[in-house]
Amino acid sequence: MQKITEPTYELPLANVDIHDDFWLAYQQLIRDVVIPYQWAALNDQVEEAEPSHAIENFRIAAGQRDGEFYGMVFQDSDVAKWLEAVGYLLNKQPDAALEQTADEVIELVAAVQQPDGYLNTYFTVKDPAGRWTNLAECHELYCAGHLIEAAVAYYHGTGKRRLLDVACKLADHIDSVFGTAAGQLPGYPGHPEIELALARLYEVTQAPRYLALAGYFVAQRGTRPHFYDEEYARRGFTSYWQTHGPAWMVKDKAYSQAHQPLAEQQVAVGHAVRFVYLMTGVAHLAQLSNDAGQRVICRRLWDNMAQKQLYITGAIGAQSSGEAFSSDYDLPPDTAYNETCASIGLMMFARRMLHLEADRRYADVMERALYNTVLAGMALDGKHFFYVNPLEVQPQSYRHNHIYDHVKPVRQRWFGCACCPPNIARLLASLGQYIYTQTPEALLVNLYIGSEARVELGGQGVTLRQQGDYLHQGEMRLSLAMEAPVSGTLALRLPGWCAAPQVTVNGEAQDVTPARQGYLWLTRCWQPGDEIALTLPMAVRRVKAASPLRHAAGQVALQRGPLVYCLEEADNGRELHNLLLPPEATFSLREGEGVLAGKTLICAPGQRVTPAAPDAALYQFDPAPAARTAQTLTFIPYFAWANRGEGEMRVWVREG
Amino acid sequence: MQKITEPTYELPLANVDIHDDFWLAYQQLIRDVVIPYQWAALNDQVEEAEPSHAIENFRIAAGQRDGEFYGMVFQDSDVAKWLEAVGYLLNKQPDAALEQTADEVIELVAAVQQPDGYLNTYFTVKDPAGRWTNLAECHELYCAGHLIEAAVAYYHGTGKRRLLDVACKLADHIDSVFGTAAGQLPGYPGHPEIELALARLYEVTQAPRYLALAGYFVAQRGTRPHFYDEEYARRGFTSYWQTHGPAWMVKDKAYSQAHQPLAEQQVAVGHAVRFVYLMTGVAHLAQLSNDAGQRVICRRLWDNMAQKQLYITGAIGAQSSGEAFSSDYDLPPDTAYNETCASIGLMMFARRMLHLEADRRYADVMERALYNTVLAGMALDGKHFFYVNPLEVQPQSYRHNHIYDHVKPVRQRWFGCACCPPNIARLLASLGQYIYTQTPEALLVNLYIGSEARVELGGQGVTLRQQGDYLHQGEMRLSLAMEAPVSGTLALRLPGWCAAPQVTVNGEAQDVTPARQGYLWLTRCWQPGDEIALTLPMAVRRVKAASPLRHAAGQVALQRGPLVYCLEEADNGRELHNLLLPPEATFSLREGEGVLAGKTLICAPGQRVTPAAPDAALYQFDPAPAARTAQTLTFIPYFAWANRGEGEMRVWVREG
Repeated sequence: MQKITEPTYELPLANVDIHDDFWLAYQQLIRDVVIPYQWAALNDQVEEAEPSHAIENFRIAAGQRDGEFYGMVFQDSDVAKWLEAVGYLLNKQPDAALEQTADEVIELVAAVQQPDGYLNTYFTVKDPAGRWTNLAECHELYCAGHLIEAAVAYYHGTGKRRLLDVACKLADHIDSVFGTAAGQLPGYPGHPEIELALARLYEVTQAPRYLALAGYFVAQRGTRPHFYDEEYARRGFTSYWQTHGPAWMVKDKAYSQAHQPLAEQQVAVGHAVRFVYLMTGVAHLAQLSNDAGQRVICRRLWDNMAQKQLYITGAIGAQSSGEAFSSDYDLPPDTAYNETCASIGLMMFARRMLHLEADRRYADVMERALYNTVLAGMALDGKHFFYVNPLEVQPQSYRHNHIYDHVKPVRQRWFGCACCPPNIARLLASLGQYIYTQTPEALLVNLYIGSEARVELGGQGVTLRQQGDYLHQGEMRLSLAMEAPVSGTLALRLPGWCAAPQVTVNGEAQDVTPARQGYLWLTRCWQPGDEIALTLPMAVRRVKAASPLRHAAGQVALQRGPLVYCLEEADNGRELHNLLLPPEATFSLREGEGVLAGKTLICAPGQRVTPAAPDAALYQFDPAPAARTAQTLTFIPYFAWANRGEGEMRVWVREG
Repeated sequence: MQKITEPTYELPLANVDIHDDFWLAYQQLIRDVVIPYQWAALNDQVEEAEPSHAIENFRIAAGQRDGEFYGMVFQDSDVAKWLEAVGYLLNKQPDAALEQTADEVIELVAAVQQPDGYLNTYFTVKDPAGRWTNLAECHELYCAGHLIEAAVAYYHGTGKRRLLDVACKLADHIDSVFGTAAGQLPGYPGHPEIELALARLYEVTQAPRYLALAGYFVAQRGTRPHFYDEEYARRGFTSYWQTHGPAWMVKDKAYSQAHQPLAEQQVAVGHAVRFVYLMTGVAHLAQLSNDAGQRVICRRLWDNMAQKQLYITGAIGAQSSGEAFSSDYDLPPDTAYNETCASIGLMMFARRMLHLEADRRYADVMERALYNTVLAGMALDGKHFFYVNPLEVQPQSYRHNHIYDHVKPVRQRWFGCACCPPNIARLLASLGQYIYTQTPEALLVNLYIGSEARVELGGQGVTLRQQGDYLHQGEMRLSLAMEAPVSGTLALRLPGWCAAPQVTVNGEAQDVTPARQGYLWLTRCWQPGDEIALTLPMAVRRVKAASPLRHAAGQVALQRGPLVYCLEEADNGRELHNLLLPPEATFSLREGEGVLAGKTLICAPGQRVTPAAPDAALYQFDPAPAARTAQTLTFIPYFAWANRGEGEMRVWVREG
């Protein structure tokens, strides 16, 4: 075991205490509802949910029970994500019972580890001889990556090394198996994750072999002859997944971003989660290795994704088939896949990009994903989840037209493929990590969230406190507490959604025009008690899409602060496509009621195209201009949609 | 063999000679290009097409060749449809070589018939013991129906009874096998077709058992216990089709309109072709049996289909999955299935409804389907075909987003499942049958097509001649020739697309206001040489959809006469969604050039939203109203789209 040091750039989660009401409520929900609920689900104790069997698989693999493996080939990762989330929770708040449960799970996991370090319940139970024979399809390295992430989080959260030791032993085993040396497998995973996990493991252990191994996995990807084809031939052309025809994961290499080396890849393609997980690892590697080539790749692929393939809700993955990107500007609102996990991975990618360069292009997207798709992924009760996040729903069509088979008009309990709920849990439990980037030049403030953080500024410890109601009022005060004055730089993100941000330091207005790439760099000798006030006027803003985006042509979306809004049938009646928002409409705000209490709604004087008579002809020749009646349009935050039963929803609204 | 009489209501094809330039050119294309091309395809002599093997299957089944069956389980029907089309062609124009080829095919077909009358190459070659064990999936009755249709057409076309005798023997065999008597199978087909075929066979043979058998198949449909389930259990739960999971055709009974008895069915559901084929038979039965209950069913299901599930192009079947209807007002333009065969079946259904009642609701839809989707199904060269007929295409998205997998942006040669091309051939070759309905009360003129017909009026033979350029000028003259004056009624359809039709008889203006259900009934004592002139002002008309149709909200389509128009990239550049047609735009006409010579194009002063700069943000806050530049919009008839290579196409155009 190498010497363990604190990570660079990464402000430890332990150093950031969130006390913002909005986010505390979510974190409380994670702690009180989601994690216990997910624990029950992992143990098959949730009656109305599809069985998970994930813990049982570990018991069987450990020889503690008889039985058969059940579930997805990557079922182990659900346990790992749960442990990772628990690690974050324990990092912030002791919970002896939870920690004991987790420790028991960790012992169970350790008991499954083979003498050589291998650890995977599917292959151990079902096909011991088949390990490492099907990287394209079977997710062993993916599960290993999640286990490593859990180990890192649990170590940071509890100081306990037990799982970290298991993870290192697993990583060492992987290091011995994979590579281009004689006797090694020149392979790489079908589902990226190990890359970002090894980078994290390197940070916590400082063992260069983990960094090198991550670099190997990235560099080897997409090389010729193609490893997926070679292993496919070696195993006699058998394949695990048959859902889209035999060996489609082997054949459709772009699905796994394995169709060409990353250095040659020009656009975001394939499975969206795979893409952002891979790029999170690559961006982390680029920072840790200071690799200029990898920076260029990251920037190029980020820009294609964010400029041409990103939904206004911070979602990616326009199609259900392959849970994948489509192509530039093909962003259908109704048939979108937009997996919750993909937006979580997008936040991870954005965070790593911020470690490479202070540019709000990353933070703006990170925030867009967080406040819209990621939050939409979970119901306000913490017990129902969206896997798929459309921007338009018409329930009747969804019941009859199979192009919508992947879409659910209301959130579901647990999923057979349960990647999203635990991913939301670990994201929200570790949200403190996304607020700051600690660079040698400056402390970047990426997100405005009421919190107290112990940061380093000019080489000295400083307590930085954020207070205010950013989400609803756009006001935030940042105050510094330290023993002595400190010379250093705070770089404040001026959110892209704000037209005229105002910043004062100790009441003195600052010129924001010198902001570089959306960050206002404030370098000075900071005094204890210095206070920075941000006023971010939070007008309701009309958002329009660039002209190539045909699905938004003639339409407008509303955004206030980071929140994208939508129309719901519950407030506006049916046939939302017949509602029009006049270009000159003025907006008013009102507070939501019932389940929407505390949410800010937007009202606007709109119009409704008068409905056709029930016996009206389907097609009318030269009809008089459709009559319109005045109707107040009520918009709610997108993340809060579908909390009032099934109904129509629409983000892009006709302007006229 | 029963006495053969002329059919009622049906004006024999032999009596109608089309001489309209537009349609003659199509019929010539069928004769000179399509039928020979299809013959080559059926014999696997088209190099660039998927193999058919259809004729070879017959040779193998007849014991003339060794080999295996290849192709769809319903491959026989392609041969039958070809023979049917040949029957129509020979009806209109002798062709000794073609007739000899057809006679040889008929001998081959006869040689496949089993001693008991059974006739199907798939089961004869592959699974003789399996006949009649899988009605839900295996299309035996469907193939039988097509063979019967071919026999009727060939008999009418040539006077030769050879195939008709084969068909009767097959029908008699079916009559012995199916029914509710002891020892009979209480089954009915998975794919309707036998019903309409038996009704035609009854008309030509006047054998009541064929009418009764057709009635049985309709009445038995959807009864409980469900026959598909029973036969599925009897054959040990094996299924032929696995494409959507095991036995999906058995389980998804609505797919085959077998989920409930027709009398209970309220809306058009399931596979669109199955639906219209079934309803064609039911409407024919309703007429032949004068069955009031069946009339009510026909009217109810027609109205649901035509009022709520019909595309403006006369297409039906909004979704690819199951090639099926979706639900009321769910008519997406881009992911539509809109099978060419479904619109052909729709014309058949409409024609039979016109035998039940003189109402232009049927004829208008029949004409809409004919001039738009049916013609669009075939390229202007007669060698390339659309199976799927979308109303919007954006080729880049079609290459990357799998929701469009079923859509082709350009027509293909032959298909592995080759139902559409021979269906177009038989429809166009028999088009004369759709022009008139000969009822006891009146001769209905449903379509205006330059032609000469020998009709019955007031019990006397009359030659009715149509002349004029209906399609481009909206003008038609109908003249009567007979030996002596005749008292009788001509009922002229006043097309729904025409706002102010004018009718004169011998130059004397007629009041059109008494028209009943869109037909102007002219009862008088007609003199030889009487001439009716129709002037149907053919303004370019803006068509808008009823407000529940969300996919057309804020948009407009153009129609001139029966032709629906579209924008193509070839004339208008890319990003057709950024083109706007102002509400007050005036239209001008121009003749097309090159491959579009002879077609009337529509031009309008429109606008284009100025394209975003290549580096423009994907989402813009409070942008200035998008700049627009003037652009002439050029619309071409929808049926002629995709004859100039791959490009965008759009029927519904933004208004503004």
